[in-house]
Amino acid sequence: MSHNIPGGRSHDLAHLAHVEMLTPKPEASLHFFTEVMGMTVSEQSGDSVFLRGWDDYEHHTLKLTAAKTNGMHHFAFRAASEHALQRRVTMIEARGLGVGWHDGDEGHGPAYRFHTPDGHLAELYYQTRWYQADETTRPALKNQASRIPGRGANLRRIDHLNLLASRIPPVREFFVDTLGALLSEQIVFDDGTEKGAWFSVNNKSYDLAVTEDHAGKRGRLHHVTYAVDSREEVLRAADLCLEHGVHIETGPHKHAVQQTFFLYVYEPGGNRFEVANAGARLILAPDWQTVVWTETERRKGQAWGLQTTPSFHTHGTPDRPEEDL
Amino acid sequence: MSHNIPGGRSHDLAHLAHVEMLTPKPEASLHFFTEVMGMTVSEQSGDSVFLRGWDDYEHHTLKLTAAKTNGMHHFAFRAASEHALQRRVTMIEARGLGVGWHDGDEGHGPAYRFHTPDGHLAELYYQTRWYQADETTRPALKNQASRIPGRGANLRRIDHLNLLASRIPPVREFFVDTLGALLSEQIVFDDGTEKGAWFSVNNKSYDLAVTEDHAGKRGRLHHVTYAVDSREEVLRAADLCLEHGVHIETGPHKHAVQQTFFLYVYEPGGNRFEVANAGARLILAPDWQTVVWTETERRKGQAWGLQTTPSFHTHGTPDRPEEDL
Amino acid sequence: MSHNIPGGRSHDLAHLAHVEMLTPKPEASLHFFTEVMGMTVSEQSGDSVFLRGWDDYEHHTLKLTAAKTNGMHHFAFRAASEHALQRRVTMIEARGLGVGWHDGDEGHGPAYRFHTPDGHLAELYYQTRWYQADETTRPALKNQASRIPGRGANLRRIDHLNLLASRIPPVREFFVDTLGALLSEQIVFDDGTEKGAWFSVNNKSYDLAVTEDHAGKRGRLHHVTYAVDSREEVLRAADLCLEHGVHIETGPHKHAVQQTFFLYVYEPGGNRFEVANAGARLILAPDWQTVVWTETERRKGQAWGLQTTPSFHTHGTPDRPEEDL
Amino acid sequence: MSHNIPGGRSHDLAHLAHVEMLTPKPEASLHFFTEVMGMTVSEQSGDSVFLRGWDDYEHHTLKLTAAKTNGMHHFAFRAASEHALQRRVTMIEARGLGVGWHDGDEGHGPAYRFHTPDGHLAELYYQTRWYQADETTRPALKNQASRIPGRGANLRRIDHLNLLASRIPPVREFFVDTLGALLSEQIVFDDGTEKGAWFSVNNKSYDLAVTEDHAGKRGRLHHVTYAVDSREEVLRAADLCLEHGVHIETGPHKHAVQQTFFLYVYEPGGNRFEVANAGARLILAPDWQTVVWTETERRKGQAWGLQTTPSFHTHGTPDRPEEDL
Repeated sequence: MSHNIPGGRSHDLAHLAHVEMLTPKPEASLHFFTEVMGMTVSEQSGDSVFLRGWDDYEHHTLKLTAAKTNGMHHFAFRAASEHALQRRVTMIEARGLGVGWHDGDEGHGPAYRFHTPDGHLAELYYQTRWYQADETTRPALKNQASRIPGRGANLRRIDHLNLLASRIPPVREFFVDTLGALLSEQIVFDDGTEKGAWFSVNNKSYDLAVTEDHAGKRGRLHHVTYAVDSREEVLRAADLCLEHGVHIETGPHKHAVQQTFFLYVYEPGGNRFEVANAGARLILAPDWQTVVWTETERRKGQAWGLQTTPSFHTHGTPDRPEEDL
Repeated sequence: MSHNIPGGRSHDLAHLAHVEMLTPKPEASLHFFTEVMGMTVSEQSGDSVFLRGWDDYEHHTLKLTAAKTNGMHHFAFRAASEHALQRRVTMIEARGLGVGWHDGDEGHGPAYRFHTPDGHLAELYYQTRWYQADETTRPALKNQASRIPGRGANLRRIDHLNLLASRIPPVREFFVDTLGALLSEQIVFDDGTEKGAWFSVNNKSYDLAVTEDHAGKRGRLHHVTYAVDSREEVLRAADLCLEHGVHIETGPHKHAVQQTFFLYVYEPGGNRFEVANAGARLILAPDWQTVVWTETERRKGQAWGLQTTPSFHTHGTPDRPEEDL
Repeated sequence: MSHNIPGGRSHDLAHLAHVEMLTPKPEASLHFFTEVMGMTVSEQSGDSVFLRGWDDYEHHTLKLTAAKTNGMHHFAFRAASEHALQRRVTMIEARGLGVGWHDGDEGHGPAYRFHTPDGHLAELYYQTRWYQADETTRPALKNQASRIPGRGANLRRIDHLNLLASRIPPVREFFVDTLGALLSEQIVFDDGTEKGAWFSVNNKSYDLAVTEDHAGKRGRLHHVTYAVDSREEVLRAADLCLEHGVHIETGPHKHAVQQTFFLYVYEPGGNRFEVANAGARLILAPDWQTVVWTETERRKGQAWGLQTTPSFHTHGTPDRPEEDL
Repeated sequence: MSHNIPGGRSHDLAHLAHVEMLTPKPEASLHFFTEVMGMTVSEQSGDSVFLRGWDDYEHHTLKLTAAKTNGMHHFAFRAASEHALQRRVTMIEARGLGVGWHDGDEGHGPAYRFHTPDGHLAELYYQTRWYQADETTRPALKNQASRIPGRGANLRRIDHLNLLASRIPPVREFFVDTLGALLSEQIVFDDGTEKGAWFSVNNKSYDLAVTEDHAGKRGRLHHVTYAVDSREEVLRAADLCLEHGVHIETGPHKHAVQQTFFLYVYEPGGNRFEVANAGARLILAPDWQTVVWTETERRKGQAWGLQTTPSFHTHGTPDRPEEDL
């Protein structure tokens, strides 16, 4: 625990809020998220379906939209307050990456759109609609957002998002300097090349990761991750993916970086999706020092020695040239 | 491990095969077993629905029958062979407890009916119909009986049956001497009164238990138990029972006797039902000595000190005088 | 989720840092914490032993001190920065509860001592000594504080502290108004009496709880809690307590309040100690509304229906009148 | 479930009893088995140490012997009775594979030694010494063999043995025809070559496996396996192997064959060792049909798609030519 990055969490961003995922196979993707993963539909509107895990407190955390290609349309963070939102919008504009305000979407209020330095579309907002349970989703215990569905993998809540970027440093600087995130871990090779960066805006050890796009493309998605409560539930999710013919890319296994217990699959639209358990791991120290993994350390593979599957370094979405569509 | 009972397992009985459970609330009971417990319907016939867990290899292990009262109609063991079946039928007849042959039922062939010394109706058979998976239940791995459903508690297989008896010794003698079971554990109070007996016919540490009916009635049911793979799954079953308003009588906790990790609930018809995990516990020793628990030891409560809920000693089914029906 | 308490987390306090526990049986208590619970000794000094869980990043989180009585000497929170520390000290002094600065202790720098309105001794500090692993405790993965010991219950990190108070409202107001904590849940009976309050200073759903002392005493301890990674580990901790003759007061079971999966035992000195798993439960919403449990809801017992053991309401430490010592 | 092998379990063999493992690094191997795996020493004698898991009922299940090479000296099955022992000795002698009687060893009585058709040394015996717990190992619950140690991986009991053989068919025929085992699963390639066979002598789905030695050698060991109670414990065993620098060959993952949840490591002497959980999986059906896996099915890798590590097919012990020693 050596490499000190100036600045810690600003607390201006509260948490990763939602991801809009594109799929060329909307029916199959919806079946995957509801029946295999156990998510619940909050609303349907136009080409989009709004979904959430049973303990996601907002209206939705996944917006699934039918499209010609796969990939991510945008992602969103919820700000900690109206003031925090305004403060960060000012900084994003000063950085020259702003797109502008829009009126909001199903479930949340006005949002400010911007691009990451690598071209991913993102937004910040504060006003939100808390999920209101109905007769079929009301929980027995009122301190949880909705009923545990007892369906498929029973995903609990959105956990983090992993972007691909053609170059890491500009994205890293943007998340730390402009958005006020903590750089909790990173991979830096012997020649100084940054291969990955993990950011935290709260006490979770990360909410967002950026890893190098070996194809050199800009603005792509590596994966979206939802959390379950235990490693046993990740294993059971793998059993269910096997039963349903879902493509398992790698895992279950334990990452060395962040120690996440992971299962990576491809949802029917081709986007990589992760079911993970982070257990009791939190960053509570206010003076956390960035953990920097070296090239030699990364060559050891994952925590228990599994070598990373090649597709993990090459598959991103959208995964086809636009001219093919 | 002290009290030696002459004779070990005969291997003539293969395993507990099924239980026919009666319910005055057939729709609610069926919803409980399918949606909350995750069992699957094999067939419906007349007033009965035939159900199984995802790794039960036979056509059914639970026959749920609409009736004026709750309780158990009969239970069945599968014999290890036609010869073993005939041998035990001869011994039952010699004991004067035989009822006679019937043609079988959905899913199995000719069965010999008899009574336990306490009046429970039971049967033995050998010929059975292996469950044939269809497109919706075919497992990904062909060494399991059907697909893990990803629904509710995902019950795996029938585990054991617990009868109530007005007096234990005649029932104990019958299972050991006439049916060739091993008495793996028992409770004997200081005055010599037997309070409970646990029997094994294979390497499971028990398939059948008989405990004292404090109401002094004959032939009643205490509970039926299905197994899941882990303690974590028993806990999740409790979460789901809570969500669905199922009455949880006691648990999850660990029994001292047999060390079963248990959850006891009442299905909507009023019958006690257990979800349990026995983990890797097996009796492999061919010369196992019956474990005898004393009155003092039983006063300590369950393994981690939970005192037994009073209803656990008083509730049995049918739970109303026949004249009330 | 209804009762709105003005003010959210101030982020001035980072986390619960340590507890100094008193024990009249120091050798037996030390054996319990190291051999049964799996904690590791950082240092011994005078009558005190400094201990930590394998992922506690500070020098110690438990200071175990030989004394004539049991109970808690003091507890400490780490501030988020020097400025945050100074800000809260000023507010505590304005509230008239300050005691003053002391030079610090093994493992941390200058600390400001104060009393809660109910008389518990507490302190705040910022400067700390990160735990430095040696050859026998160096972890294989450098993003964890030290090696998983593979001993006893393998406690991971300090989780929360539960105080007893003669009256809840003054303590609640102090933690919210003076220390800037979020009141995440509380129990309020029909006549308006507050029975318990749970406070969060970060994204954990609570770091501190205060419940009513039925004996009407001031300044006592209810329990200290350490976290493990899974419910399965809590169950295994119960198995180990059973093997070692540790008194299990109640559990494992699941609280309705905060949904903590708990095991309560008495360490040999008589202090209540909890092993718990909170899984993926976090409060990420910046506008969380306090969950208020009513008298009727509390009568239902714990999450799965377990009625609270009477001693849970009556046992606190120190547990004997001072004149007896 | 198609390929019917005439004959089922004879019940003459009760269970796999012990394995004598050779190690050129006796101190390091002993440290691995006691401190990392959590086994307990029953006795030391000459160059051998006798070890057991906490619920192994016999004096020992692993005899660890210092030697110039690694590998297995012999393995043993316990017979179900003196008659069963005599019956199988007669059949082995008729098969021409007998070696003869010896007086027994620490912990068991007279044993009959023989060779498998591939040259592995084996023995059968009936008389045994049940493990007698002392003050430090006496369990709290008297229906378990000894105290859960709370040390390392807490291995519960010996589970199975996997031999390598230059040719499978003779070994398969010997175990089925001469020893009366059930062939529960096997791998048969498209050209009819048998690649592996799994045998059960009780209700466990296997006690012994034989897989092809790609090096074409005779009589070698692939691995020995001990069982824990849950998949979570296998994962924790992997965490501990990582902490202790134990070489993890592959896993944790789930086999398609037998569905075992596995972790394979090399103990310091170079022998492959497995920690596994089989959950509630048992073969209770008396008419089980051998599950035959095809070449195509095996190409899919393990259950969740992990491709088998090359060393899994090439590493066996002893792993060096005898002339090298």
